[in-house]
Amino acid sequence: MLEDKNPQRTSLEKLGEFGLIDHLTKNFEIKHKSTLKGIGDDAAVFDHKQQTVLTTDFLIEGVHFDLSYMPLKHLGYKAVMVNLSDVYAMNAKATQITVSLAVSNRFPLEALEELYAGIALASKVYNVDLIGGDTTTSTSGMLISITAVGEAKKEEITYRSGAKPNDLLVVSGDLGAAYMGLQVLEREKEVFKVNPNNQPDLSPYSYIVERQLKPEARKDIAELLKQLDVLPTAMIDISDGLSSEILHLCKNSKVGCNLFEEKIPLDPTVITTCEEFNIDSTMVALSGGEDYELLFTIAQNDFDKIKGNPNLTVIGHMTEPSEGAHLVTRANTKIELTAQGWNSFKSND
Amino acid sequence: MLEDKNPQRTSLEKLGEFGLIDHLTKNFEIKHKSTLKGIGDDAAVFDHKQQTVLTTDFLIEGVHFDLSYMPLKHLGYKAVMVNLSDVYAMNAKATQITVSLAVSNRFPLEALEELYAGIALASKVYNVDLIGGDTTTSTSGMLISITAVGEAKKEEITYRSGAKPNDLLVVSGDLGAAYMGLQVLEREKEVFKVNPNNQPDLSPYSYIVERQLKPEARKDIAELLKQLDVLPTAMIDISDGLSSEILHLCKNSKVGCNLFEEKIPLDPTVITTCEEFNIDSTMVALSGGEDYELLFTIAQNDFDKIKGNPNLTVIGHMTEPSEGAHLVTRANTKIELTAQGWNSFKSND
Repeated sequence: MLEDKNPQRTSLEKLGEFGLIDHLTKNFEIKHKSTLKGIGDDAAVFDHKQQTVLTTDFLIEGVHFDLSYMPLKHLGYKAVMVNLSDVYAMNAKATQITVSLAVSNRFPLEALEELYAGIALASKVYNVDLIGGDTTTSTSGMLISITAVGEAKKEEITYRSGAKPNDLLVVSGDLGAAYMGLQVLEREKEVFKVNPNNQPDLSPYSYIVERQLKPEARKDIAELLKQLDVLPTAMIDISDGLSSEILHLCKNSKVGCNLFEEKIPLDPTVITTCEEFNIDSTMVALSGGEDYELLFTIAQNDFDKIKGNPNLTVIGHMTEPSEGAHLVTRANTKIELTAQGWNSFKSND
Repeated sequence: MLEDKNPQRTSLEKLGEFGLIDHLTKNFEIKHKSTLKGIGDDAAVFDHKQQTVLTTDFLIEGVHFDLSYMPLKHLGYKAVMVNLSDVYAMNAKATQITVSLAVSNRFPLEALEELYAGIALASKVYNVDLIGGDTTTSTSGMLISITAVGEAKKEEITYRSGAKPNDLLVVSGDLGAAYMGLQVLEREKEVFKVNPNNQPDLSPYSYIVERQLKPEARKDIAELLKQLDVLPTAMIDISDGLSSEILHLCKNSKVGCNLFEEKIPLDPTVITTCEEFNIDSTMVALSGGEDYELLFTIAQNDFDKIKGNPNLTVIGHMTEPSEGAHLVTRANTKIELTAQGWNSFKSND
């Protein structure tokens, strides 16, 4: 689907490992005072005045992404987002990242420059410093491992474990779009295989395709909640699907939950695309994954503070643990929530 | 060379990603007061009272290790060592690690249990907390990405950049053993391919084979230097070979160096094995890599404090940058040092 419009191909071997790191990271600036040493020593050094949160995620070609429709610049951007999302889910400010990359020799330098352009853009927009990483060869494909750190005051960090019965369950943005974007891209890939001259018209799907290819982590939500003077009792990011994340909150907080189907926020494009693909949109929101929205609980007293905010939707409430975790359908029947989220070890994925 | 003596094979698919993490990490204890949250939330949380150092390294099957002679428990141990070595090279105390693992479905659960047994042993012996990671499938082979963090007082952190002309160049332990251990293992692998019934006698090579398969990071050196009241002016760990690391110190500190061939510490097994393989032992020390010893510079005034210590050898001294970096051979000729260290992107590796 994506043509190689750049005829220049510089082999990685020419540069060697150190030359490659220097070349790829030469335009990254250090922005945070807390970053004392970035790339170029045995380890990076930073000095956080508050508590540090740290998270790490792998992205693997053929498992987490498909380069036949994922532009490398978007991939670099998304790889950073996936990690920052976890930092924001702790209600922390993201400050530093490391990027480790393993690539087979089939990738020319120009491809890695594209990838790092995406990483650079993400670092700039989200105000994080690239402070280290590792660059090596792989026996097949591309693998990215990112570690992100952030900083937060002790009393502001939100764990998965703080939800209480009667707390409201709130979600940012809308759900299911990234998954449906993936369905559209997969379909176009099949069409392309049959007829490589076919130019797909993705414009009706631009919102959901962008949610898949270039998601944004919700840096704004932690800032918004601070402005609204709301401290979530528990928080998690939605990477595996709403259902799986709710069950994490329930398990860690030892509470139950009632989730209301009619409240789940869906973009109109998700609804129409679900109809086109003949998929149930609630199922997509529950199990689709890769939304990178934030799911959190707040005390009922805080409801007035968030009421009517277009970024936030109350989708349910927590209950006594004995009540379990349920979806309350539009027909007002209760269905037990089960984790249908993504299991990368399933051989039929 | 290694038989599968364990007939039990539990597929990873059965457990799923979360079940797998829970299972593999259930016996890890949190030992540090600074670790506030380990595995089980969107991010780990820690609180360092001093500055934080952070380093990350990839280990990739077929590039960095060969499972035909690397037992999985040793691999887990070594993967931790590789990272802790970078923390100690900053003169910091290692405190926390994350371990991310990508494995193909060909590995049964029991293999990963072995790997984690090695990680657990390393964590215990080196007193670090496992606080997070990611576990996913790979399209081929096994990949390990570890991030290690440590803590140090601002004034104690040793960068690569602090060496001055006339500082002494000091190395811990001895060099070249890990590389020669690898040569022996590779030779035995070839013998095994021809005759699988041949039982190799590795006992004459036990020191060098152990240095390859189960290296130890030099936690003790930072402690020793503190006892001796010596603060290195610059420090680096030897992962790519002495020559490459000296050039890093020279470049970062803007100094030159004279390294004396006759001073390079070699174990007798390295010397005899080099003779057997008809390889020059100095070349092995200069370019072999994977020694995980510490290379550092000290002020001449500090010489009396380290003199005669069996763990430390003065191998040269730093010079004005205009003099360049040279090896002074036993025949008293000067040869310019060049980085012959490992380039993983070379296609003929």
